[in-house]
Amino acid sequence: MSDRDTQEAAIRRLRERLSGGNMLPVKRALHALNPAEIAEFLTSLPPSERNLVWEMVSPEDDGEVLLHLPESIRAGLIRQMDTAELIKAAEELEIDDLADLLEDLPETVTREVLKALDADDRARLEKVLAYDPDTAGGLMNTDTVTVRPDVSLDVVQRYLRLRGELPAHTDALYVVDRYGAYLGALPLDKILTRATDELVANVMHRDLPAIPAQEKAHDVARRFEAADLISAPVVDSKGILVGRITIDDVVDVIRAEGEHNMMSMAGLAEDEDLFAPVRQAALRRGIWLGINLMTAFAAAWVVGRFEATIAQVVALAVLMPIVASMGGITANQIVALMVRGMALGQVSAGTALLLLRKELGVALINGVAWGVTVAAVTWLWFSQLPLALVIGLALILNLSFAAAAGVLVPLLLRRFGLDPALAGSVIVTTCTDVMGFFLFLGLGTLILL
Amino acid sequence: MSDRDTQEAAIRRLRERLSGGNMLPVKRALHALNPAEIAEFLTSLPPSERNLVWEMVSPEDDGEVLLHLPESIRAGLIRQMDTAELIKAAEELEIDDLADLLEDLPETVTREVLKALDADDRARLEKVLAYDPDTAGGLMNTDTVTVRPDVSLDVVQRYLRLRGELPAHTDALYVVDRYGAYLGALPLDKILTRATDELVANVMHRDLPAIPAQEKAHDVARRFEAADLISAPVVDSKGILVGRITIDDVVDVIRAEGEHNMMSMAGLAEDEDLFAPVRQAALRRGIWLGINLMTAFAAAWVVGRFEATIAQVVALAVLMPIVASMGGITANQIVALMVRGMALGQVSAGTALLLLRKELGVALINGVAWGVTVAAVTWLWFSQLPLALVIGLALILNLSFAAAAGVLVPLLLRRFGLDPALAGSVIVTTCTDVMGFFLFLGLGTLILL
Repeated sequence: MSDRDTQEAAIRRLRERLSGGNMLPVKRALHALNPAEIAEFLTSLPPSERNLVWEMVSPEDDGEVLLHLPESIRAGLIRQMDTAELIKAAEELEIDDLADLLEDLPETVTREVLKALDADDRARLEKVLAYDPDTAGGLMNTDTVTVRPDVSLDVVQRYLRLRGELPAHTDALYVVDRYGAYLGALPLDKILTRATDELVANVMHRDLPAIPAQEKAHDVARRFEAADLISAPVVDSKGILVGRITIDDVVDVIRAEGEHNMMSMAGLAEDEDLFAPVRQAALRRGIWLGINLMTAFAAAWVVGRFEATIAQVVALAVLMPIVASMGGITANQIVALMVRGMALGQVSAGTALLLLRKELGVALINGVAWGVTVAAVTWLWFSQLPLALVIGLALILNLSFAAAAGVLVPLLLRRFGLDPALAGSVIVTTCTDVMGFFLFLGLGTLILL
Repeated sequence: MSDRDTQEAAIRRLRERLSGGNMLPVKRALHALNPAEIAEFLTSLPPSERNLVWEMVSPEDDGEVLLHLPESIRAGLIRQMDTAELIKAAEELEIDDLADLLEDLPETVTREVLKALDADDRARLEKVLAYDPDTAGGLMNTDTVTVRPDVSLDVVQRYLRLRGELPAHTDALYVVDRYGAYLGALPLDKILTRATDELVANVMHRDLPAIPAQEKAHDVARRFEAADLISAPVVDSKGILVGRITIDDVVDVIRAEGEHNMMSMAGLAEDEDLFAPVRQAALRRGIWLGINLMTAFAAAWVVGRFEATIAQVVALAVLMPIVASMGGITANQIVALMVRGMALGQVSAGTALLLLRKELGVALINGVAWGVTVAAVTWLWFSQLPLALVIGLALILNLSFAAAAGVLVPLLLRRFGLDPALAGSVIVTTCTDVMGFFLFLGLGTLILL
């Protein structure tokens, strides 16, 4: 049995004990988990039990646990805590993590926390807080260990042994000049494997580029992925070293982006809590349903224009959902592809036309293939050749229209600074519904009446 | 201007030159990019240009570039290469990367590559190949640096200096007994900061658990995230150290999982190439459209049962897409939540009932709120109170049904070992369409006729 199994079993047992109302063993078992595991456990609990367990977490773990929780859950638990507890939780954290947490804390608590820090830490915290949390500056920690280029590795080693423990995830020291400008990185393994009388300047990596503090978190993540980085230096606009970003923070960015796209396409926030209270969840989802309702009425209005036609050929009403639905599927597939392609930087103005041509080609092939199939089934079902013709033709046209919408709508949304993952799906589905009904009933009116 | 900007500008310039047919500068610019960047550039190109650029990549980069490409693109390029080129590409890779690549190579080439390796490397490669690529064993590299517990840090340092360079991403040495059994980890920073006469046994971390080689890649990724790991030892069933996993491989797993869920919910493979040739893309998407067509016909069949009703009250045909569409949105939101919740291990048998109750509550609130709205609009539009009643009631019922389907379908799919992200969306949409039409037209028949 793996550790992972044991751990999942432990969480399962915890949950059983909890529902059995047996609190003492729960509390004891909780102490055996690390903050990330406690956060995982809390996330898997419904709100009432979650609050109960939260009370049992030791105060010195509170800060770390809060950090590992999705924002929507974190906010709920913070509301339950009093100021003293919040300050205690904040004090246990590293500077970059503390900066993340402060965003969610009430103003009064933030002031108290800042007061409780020593001058050094306060200065470092203020440095991180000065940057947008969604940039390299917001992601960074300020706990860099720096050396000068003109000393020998032997000196570096003596300095390190004097200094004692290094900050977590330190895989390299950074080499800076006397003004603090970044010159290069000195990986720990170089210190260990190269001759001790070598100078830092001769051993350091000069090709690890520093990340500008203003760089977007998304670009930082792609940079880490492309170069397989563990940590990277962050510099301000003058090239002065201001901190470093470590891979664990980048992993959070990557995970969040993956979830963002999937959840957005369903009209959800990426931190939507599976166990959110009913009323809160109803409100969040209700907005999306309301938007969809408007678009559904738009489609219904189009159908309404053809009431007279439907009254004469009821089969049109029977078949019309098919044309709309096939268009919706086609468009949504392309939106998913475009959203990912844009996130990976694959879609430029230059390739837009090419993609449009490709997707129109794909839609035409599938339109003809499935159009003929639909027409054949319709003919067998209703024994009306003109009706079969109408649906086949409408399908081909709607799939082509869906292809165009699937490529162009995400591009337009991006141009206007809107999120293609969130708005793209609902817009293209509206387009293909409206167009599907219009094409099918319109052609029906022309050909069948 | 940041490095990232410079790099994106470089890629843009490359693309412009390429379309200008000016090959020499393209080739020169290509040499300035690292393999990950070249892969990114290739992915953003349509097939014809992609093949052209691929010819220009230096042979010693071929292997690394192939590894950074999505599988669908990689396979296409491999087909173009001859055996000699493939062997050359493979020889440049690390063992774990080589193992990944071998999966895609033709059998004859694999044999040649194995022949070309020295005995040591062959043995290491075979060790990795023995494990499923989707497990810790498949992810691991075998380049661990090991030490014994009973030596001093001073001895370790001398050993390292004799040995020279450490493998990439080495943040710790592993401590093993004489049989190779894993005992603990010796982080590089401990070697640098602790007294040189300390014994390894006293300094090493005993609490970094080894990962069983059979553990699933998904669980490995969650373990790395929970404990913020950079690298971790992998052991076989007897506790013998067989390799290590580094975070860069885990990042790939996390990225792929995020994409998998979004793409699956749209019925796409996660490695679907944005620039796939039209015919290939048409075939892949066509299958999904075909499945959707069957479900659309099922819905149409239900509508067909009510032809007589529609013939008398044409307004029913006008309004019926609304009920179906609102149900589809509701169900798909819940599927997205469930898919993520199951991936994060939040959904157990114990919480299923609770989630069902919660989602029914959410659906009831939104059903009543939007049901009343829809009824009001319908009344204004058609001035028929009974019709307004029918649509309001149908909406409430269909949203409740959608909530149940959204919770239960993903759970059932998982129970049967199927992918909820892939099948969940199409199944619940079918359910809510069929049910939506049935409820609305059925109630219409009962109340209006």
